[in-house]
Amino acid sequence: MPEAASAAATRATIGDSEFDRDTAVTRRAPGVYDIDLSAGWTIINAVNGGYLLAVLGRALGDALPHPDPFTISAHYLTASQPGPAVVRTETVRTGRSLSTGQASLLQYDDEGNEVERIRVLASYGDLDALPDDVRTSAKPPAIPPPDQCFGPEDGPAPVDGSSAIADRLMLKLDPGTLGWALGQPSGRGEMRAWFGLADGRDADPLSLLLAVDALPPTAFELGLKGWVPTVELTAHVRCRPAPGPLRVSITTRNLAGGFLEEDAEVWDSADRLVAQSRQLARVRLG
Amino acid sequence: MPEAASAAATRATIGDSEFDRDTAVTRRAPGVYDIDLSAGWTIINAVNGGYLLAVLGRALGDALPHPDPFTISAHYLTASQPGPAVVRTETVRTGRSLSTGQASLLQYDDEGNEVERIRVLASYGDLDALPDDVRTSAKPPAIPPPDQCFGPEDGPAPVDGSSAIADRLMLKLDPGTLGWALGQPSGRGEMRAWFGLADGRDADPLSLLLAVDALPPTAFELGLKGWVPTVELTAHVRCRPAPGPLRVSITTRNLAGGFLEEDAEVWDSADRLVAQSRQLARVRLG
Repeated sequence: MPEAASAAATRATIGDSEFDRDTAVTRRAPGVYDIDLSAGWTIINAVNGGYLLAVLGRALGDALPHPDPFTISAHYLTASQPGPAVVRTETVRTGRSLSTGQASLLQYDDEGNEVERIRVLASYGDLDALPDDVRTSAKPPAIPPPDQCFGPEDGPAPVDGSSAIADRLMLKLDPGTLGWALGQPSGRGEMRAWFGLADGRDADPLSLLLAVDALPPTAFELGLKGWVPTVELTAHVRCRPAPGPLRVSITTRNLAGGFLEEDAEVWDSADRLVAQSRQLARVRLG
Repeated sequence: MPEAASAAATRATIGDSEFDRDTAVTRRAPGVYDIDLSAGWTIINAVNGGYLLAVLGRALGDALPHPDPFTISAHYLTASQPGPAVVRTETVRTGRSLSTGQASLLQYDDEGNEVERIRVLASYGDLDALPDDVRTSAKPPAIPPPDQCFGPEDGPAPVDGSSAIADRLMLKLDPGTLGWALGQPSGRGEMRAWFGLADGRDADPLSLLLAVDALPPTAFELGLKGWVPTVELTAHVRCRPAPGPLRVSITTRNLAGGFLEEDAEVWDSADRLVAQSRQLARVRLG
């Protein structure tokens, strides 16, 4: 078998990949799902917020009559831990082309009490039913080719702490937004990267929910260090992504009063703007 | 009395204005509020979504231990009508500096059944407790002075239909984003305006929730006509606004598949970025 064909044969596919297995929810009763949160998607020992959003998005995709998250708003309440969790969903409204649902991710404390981790509201539709018209004025971000970009494997780990998620992502950061890793942050609130899953699984609407919250925080390029916890994140999925790597561009315009916004755009290999997100996050000023 | 002092004396104040009276909710029981939705905030006979968001925001401000909406996400389910409505709130989490709540706006159909109009999730804090640091790179939009901008009172009504809200707003549109009203839309997804309440009441966090959804849709400048209903809108209030008129800038980058996003920025007279919002809206392509 030629090498290229061999490599293609070993690529994970949508529905049969680690990401799919680690976001799989088991329906225990109508609107109640069990999930074992994987330790594989932690960053500095915290479970990645985008992975958690994908778990909630998957439960809602099962509970609602429409398959795809068009807009999903998550308020992050307490820090999730790897291990057992429950998702409770509620169907808020069912319409012809859109339906709206709510979901909560819950875990248990040492006394067995339920602790809510995240609550989301989302409106779902069918991306494949949308017309093909595009009148966008948005342009894809200019990022050098992947072989001129840098990932965690290209040097000393740029972030302290164990980050299992790094092994599961293909993340190649634009050198233009990598000054922070060299001790020379640009002062601009920008972060850009090529993004994919390390096992070669192509992107789908659920992995876009991961993509919008998987880059290093823009705060690093603003000269800040330390954790930037998300208060709220809303993502819009605008188009089913084409196969191939994604480009993710994140910008922050307003760092003030100990909070900042992160606006993400995700572009697919066909130059379509496939997702947009905005989050409000806290910063600790040094 | 000098004229200036006389004019100042007749200006409405925060807490004692039509906007305050029309968003007033009456607590019937813990977490249950009655409101009579005013017909004064309708646009083309629909109740304005920003006014409704302010009503929900006000109920949550009463229900939660923190006063100010830091981030509020609303999913619009069915069209509200002027008249009686109920707001039901739930406290999701109470923290030291932030608390999170949920609220639903409900009305009744002809058979007396509850119909949910809007559901929101929001995280509240205390704007006055935030540090004064500002490291923003955002710049206020360039809008000509108000006397070089145009409102509904400056010519034939640019939008067909009765719009009571126009009498309650000071809205002066940048002529650079007014081509649509002259039959010559620019093709750029931009809308900019000076914004205030017509009775002179200064802005506060609740009126910012109105400001982010009170301009004509950017779709008009993209050459589209007709209604652009909001699916979901998330607003971040970043700073208590200074007295004086606001500047609102709205941009759309991506019109595709029958949906578009509208990103709003609201600036106060002290050149502070006081609110940001993004909504996902449907468009009907002509």
